[in-house]
Amino acid sequence: MSKKITSGPDFAAGGGLLPAIAQDADSGEVLMLAYMNSEAYEETMRTGRAVYWSRSRKRLWRKGEQSGHVQQVEGVFLDCDADTILLRVRQAGVACHEGYKSCFFRRVDKNGVQIVAERLVDPAQVYPSDGQT
Amino acid sequence: MSKKITSGPDFAAGGGLLPAIAQDADSGEVLMLAYMNSEAYEETMRTGRAVYWSRSRKRLWRKGEQSGHVQQVEGVFLDCDADTILLRVRQAGVACHEGYKSCFFRRVDKNGVQIVAERLVDPAQVYPSDGQT
Repeated sequence: MSKKITSGPDFAAGGGLLPAIAQDADSGEVLMLAYMNSEAYEETMRTGRAVYWSRSRKRLWRKGEQSGHVQQVEGVFLDCDADTILLRVRQAGVACHEGYKSCFFRRVDKNGVQIVAERLVDPAQVYPSDGQT
Repeated sequence: MSKKITSGPDFAAGGGLLPAIAQDADSGEVLMLAYMNSEAYEETMRTGRAVYWSRSRKRLWRKGEQSGHVQQVEGVFLDCDADTILLRVRQAGVACHEGYKSCFFRRVDKNGVQIVAERLVDPAQVYPSDGQT
């Protein structure tokens, strides 16, 4: 009922891509979810900086490459099936390309969706044109 | 560069399924990641109990249906693209079918994988045969 996990993420289980959660190492806030392929994971492990795979651009996405809002990785965890990765990170600036610390700045309930966080950065001041962070 | 989000998750963006992170509402610990389709999401919103879509069983998975380890939902958040869901939950028992509070009980570094949490529950005492929690 459980897999024996000795080496690392099971990228094959996700067709080559696994979800990776970034959590603030100090506050515990969940900052974002992105995806990693094996190359992104290996570079993350080697450099200590979070690197993802951009599904929209189909290329490695070194988080902060445009904004400077890099993520220093303090710890890497795998779930029981080794098909989700959890990073505990120190976030420079903000995680979200919309200028919020966390991408999860919208709360939804039966009455609808509302923004529940403060925008800390003006995206227009950070990104040249396309919002990749 | 950003979507206007007024109503809820963009299930179409995920081909009908979106990742849903469950986070402990008190401690901030990330407990697990599972998937929701619109039916699971709607039942979650309606009942206040976390319901996922089991990709392996291809059916709704009412978390805790076998173990009693239900998740009472305290808050639901969407990320900037509305393609990831974050639940803040009160977890009865443990989240992980292997008996750990969180599914992320393995830490990985350059030296390999090690278990960094305490097993709180003997899975054999909780699940009849198949580990669905």
